[in-house]
Amino acid sequence: MTTQRIAIIGGTGDQGKGLALRWAKAGYEIVIGSRAADRAQAAAIEMRAQLGADANITGAANADAAADAGIVVLTVPFAAQTPTLKEIKDRLQPQTVLVDVTVPLEPAVGGKPTRVLGVWAGSAAEQCAELAPAGVQVVSAFHNVGADALADLTHEVACDVFVCGDDKEAKARVRPLVEAIPGCRFIDGGVLANSRTVEALTALLIGVNIRYKAHTGIRITGI
Amino acid sequence: MTTQRIAIIGGTGDQGKGLALRWAKAGYEIVIGSRAADRAQAAAIEMRAQLGADANITGAANADAAADAGIVVLTVPFAAQTPTLKEIKDRLQPQTVLVDVTVPLEPAVGGKPTRVLGVWAGSAAEQCAELAPAGVQVVSAFHNVGADALADLTHEVACDVFVCGDDKEAKARVRPLVEAIPGCRFIDGGVLANSRTVEALTALLIGVNIRYKAHTGIRITGI
Repeated sequence: MTTQRIAIIGGTGDQGKGLALRWAKAGYEIVIGSRAADRAQAAAIEMRAQLGADANITGAANADAAADAGIVVLTVPFAAQTPTLKEIKDRLQPQTVLVDVTVPLEPAVGGKPTRVLGVWAGSAAEQCAELAPAGVQVVSAFHNVGADALADLTHEVACDVFVCGDDKEAKARVRPLVEAIPGCRFIDGGVLANSRTVEALTALLIGVNIRYKAHTGIRITGI
Repeated sequence: MTTQRIAIIGGTGDQGKGLALRWAKAGYEIVIGSRAADRAQAAAIEMRAQLGADANITGAANADAAADAGIVVLTVPFAAQTPTLKEIKDRLQPQTVLVDVTVPLEPAVGGKPTRVLGVWAGSAAEQCAELAPAGVQVVSAFHNVGADALADLTHEVACDVFVCGDDKEAKARVRPLVEAIPGCRFIDGGVLANSRTVEALTALLIGVNIRYKAHTGIRITGI
């Protein structure tokens, strides 16, 4: 249990909502960010209704949500990553850990995306790091954790979480967030550039979900 | 049990040897291929000594090994992939399934490789398909199964196997080879181009192995 404040930017989407529910349930203070403050506040009210009065979830416009959080989690579609970072970057505190969950999925014409776009920086996470202000450490994580699994609070989330980043301390600060979600396990994924593979793995797993009509996750065996 | 003949090209390497041991133990007829026939024969003798007289393993030069096998498995370092394919391609039968296990690991200066090279075709498997003669179906598989785990016949191999390919029938012909290895599970990885991700995942797992001093594998949860 902790009262550390976490901002979830794009937190009205499925992935952001799912993470918010799990972390609020574990005792974290959550600020949902959205482009429109009222949409963020509505999502926060909905989640408080689901979790009970103890849940510490509020909502704010993205930049306000980001301004006062030790950990800022970015859960937006890839196309929104750059505009969102532009919106929040001047409000991020130095020493903030910015957790990028973005996957550069290639938009599909009909059906779900099962491929990733090429990103010049190498990955969405590296692009995020290029845009982040000095002093902010970027870590990528939670790509492979399904929104459906997060939302179903009656079940554990059977998924290991690759955490990639160039700063060991920043990865260590993300570890409790992984371990706050029952069933999730922290896996040190190495440097931020390894996000290239973890992001692509998300698209591969979406394809597996389609072929097997399943909600899959991933486990690393042998550790 | 089956007597279908499998050629393992580059079969004197760790990955090739491990697959040969597992499949021979399951009753398959195995031909080890190597650039030098005598080296292949020596490896075959060694494996027969380990498995017992029932084991059906012989050795031959790569091209001869490939010439008469329904399934040809390519387990060579990436730098050897093209020269090896040049060596065997005219000897492959139409209807052969060519199983590419190649990972385009970036050579490391000191230590083990933990990154993949960019391959113009997209992946080693797609490069293999470009070089394969018409009628031969290329499937990629067994990238993430560790050589150490394969070699240890006293234990199951705790690893799911992504099988990628553009031909469903060819993937179906590889399924029994996955299931012949205790602990391995067939996962339809989709089209051959998805090998890009599975190959990169191998490098990611090598990095995890280094950081955790472990021999890791992968499991897909939820199916």
